Amino acid sequence: MKLQNDLMLRAAKGEDIERYPVWLMRQAGRILPEYRAVRESVSGFKELVETPELAAEVTIQPVDILGVDAAIIFSDILVVPEAMNVPYQMLEKRGPWFEHTIRSAEQAKRVETNFDVEDRLGYVMEAIRLTVKELNGRVPVIGFAGAPWTIFCYMVEGHGSKTFSEARKILWTDPKLAHQLLQDITDVTIAYLKAQVKAGASMIQVFDSWAGILGTEQYATFALPYLSQIASAISDVPVTLFSKGAITSIPAIAKLDCNTVGLDWNMDIPTVRAQVGNNRTLQGNLDPCTLYGSHQTVETETIKMLNSFGKNKRHIVNLGHGVYPDVDPEKVKTFIKTVKSYEIN
Amino acid sequence: MKLQNDLMLRAAKGEDIERYPVWLMRQAGRILPEYRAVRESVSGFKELVETPELAAEVTIQPVDILGVDAAIIFSDILVVPEAMNVPYQMLEKRGPWFEHTIRSAEQAKRVETNFDVEDRLGYVMEAIRLTVKELNGRVPVIGFAGAPWTIFCYMVEGHGSKTFSEARKILWTDPKLAHQLLQDITDVTIAYLKAQVKAGASMIQVFDSWAGILGTEQYATFALPYLSQIASAISDVPVTLFSKGAITSIPAIAKLDCNTVGLDWNMDIPTVRAQVGNNRTLQGNLDPCTLYGSHQTVETETIKMLNSFGKNKRHIVNLGHGVYPDVDPEKVKTFIKTVKSYEIN
Repeated sequence: MKLQNDLMLRAAKGEDIERYPVWLMRQAGRILPEYRAVRESVSGFKELVETPELAAEVTIQPVDILGVDAAIIFSDILVVPEAMNVPYQMLEKRGPWFEHTIRSAEQAKRVETNFDVEDRLGYVMEAIRLTVKELNGRVPVIGFAGAPWTIFCYMVEGHGSKTFSEARKILWTDPKLAHQLLQDITDVTIAYLKAQVKAGASMIQVFDSWAGILGTEQYATFALPYLSQIASAISDVPVTLFSKGAITSIPAIAKLDCNTVGLDWNMDIPTVRAQVGNNRTLQGNLDPCTLYGSHQTVETETIKMLNSFGKNKRHIVNLGHGVYPDVDPEKVKTFIKTVKSYEIN
Repeated sequence: MKLQNDLMLRAAKGEDIERYPVWLMRQAGRILPEYRAVRESVSGFKELVETPELAAEVTIQPVDILGVDAAIIFSDILVVPEAMNVPYQMLEKRGPWFEHTIRSAEQAKRVETNFDVEDRLGYVMEAIRLTVKELNGRVPVIGFAGAPWTIFCYMVEGHGSKTFSEARKILWTDPKLAHQLLQDITDVTIAYLKAQVKAGASMIQVFDSWAGILGTEQYATFALPYLSQIASAISDVPVTLFSKGAITSIPAIAKLDCNTVGLDWNMDIPTVRAQVGNNRTLQGNLDPCTLYGSHQTVETETIKMLNSFGKNKRHIVNLGHGVYPDVDPEKVKTFIKTVKSYEIN
């Protein structure tokens, strides 16, 4: 299907663009009253994720309401461990929780990799197909998955954590088990992302939310090789790697076979540009808390970020983190309007 | 009182040392069975903090048992907001929780600054006096406080958080209130740290545990000016500033009137040394998870870190974060033994 708005794809590939494309991580869900209405019609977060019609509906909402340049499929990175026989629950106000954790070779026996992703995660692919059909070429659909390191963190720790010290422990006590589990996650993730592309995703983003808790050397050992496999395996659509907090690993990430490197709000655009050169697109990175400011503040800070691009066209505008739940959607509209009216040439 | 072991002080001041001094953040408490025995004899964490005899006892334990080159007073950074009339509870397995939060000028009215720190925090000073007396000059005692930004985070948010988005929100919605509260915290912290020095602390460390959630610019606006005031106000003893995660702000921190800059495990020693020059001591920064490895791993990784110092004597050895609760004390001993037997000349 020919896209009417393919700005995102062109920016990712380093082609000419007439203005910077813009979208927001977590744009599907959280901030929109229209989302909350759908969310309240079901029993829980997982029901929404697993019901393709509803997932497609909330995926499209920000395209209609906010005017973003891409839709990102409404789902969760934890559907992958669940498919691997390590299921999760999403506890209200407490976040994800796993009944089984994988901290030993014995526990790792329950991990399954040899299955058809369409069988176990077909609801995601169906949501993508419905979204693509419904959008009818208005904007591209972004598919996504968690990075192996981040999924590993949850499978080992069993819940969120400030330090993920159980997960990091295994890197020292049983690196062989760690590598095996990371490889298993990688294999499933590649199959899953390929299925998303086949279902109609025009771009892929890999979220390494817990990248920042590893030092440079451990990130190079336990994260980059698996990110590399994923980036190289997805060849039909542009790939974005977003390793939150991995400030010292950005040059190494940019060397992987990806199109775009996602930046969090602590990363300085000119510094990163100097490190990675002009062969990669940068995505980000307004501080999400900026959207708590006045409309004037949002506009001023957005322009400051846009100016920091220095007219370089290899940029996709986003926040440096998912939009926070209590942000006023009107402020998001100001952010998007400011980007759209910024003259690039 | 003349110290028998003043290695830490000499390293902090850039004087000659015969070997690198070593201690561990969170060495008092957590990992030692001897600590747990004391902890179980009282009703809760706060009772231990507020009972000088017991606080002194657990402060001295790691000197006796582990052989560290300094004692750090057993306390909590949250005693400062409590003294300011914003009390905390320490919930088992859930961490700190505040009944009152400060998110508006109205709520800020309850914040008190005009009091004698000996009246409200005298138990900490008494614990320091008892520790100094009991140690009888064996090693120096480190006093400490939270950095204003980190204390602000807790006073606004009311509990731990991955993003502290309520605290960061105020920086955008009411920067005047933020600066006022940060100044109030700074004023109390300076008085508190001076009282600790008067009570016998030979060094001061300021912990900015949540430095990493601010971008470089916001850290320069809302954190550095207050850290600067504190560093300049403490003139009789060496001051260490440890801003966890503030990797892009390290050069600016090193320009403040401090002796030592603390580094977390994500920071690269040679890179930081090149940034800050030779007029500051660096403290850190072994990955605390290394201590989950074998004794051989602990030794190898410790030597690797020591080698990265390049024979520069302005180093205090530590982990890059507090020691994790489930670490085997025998591994800590291997870490310390390796540092002590490393030949610096």
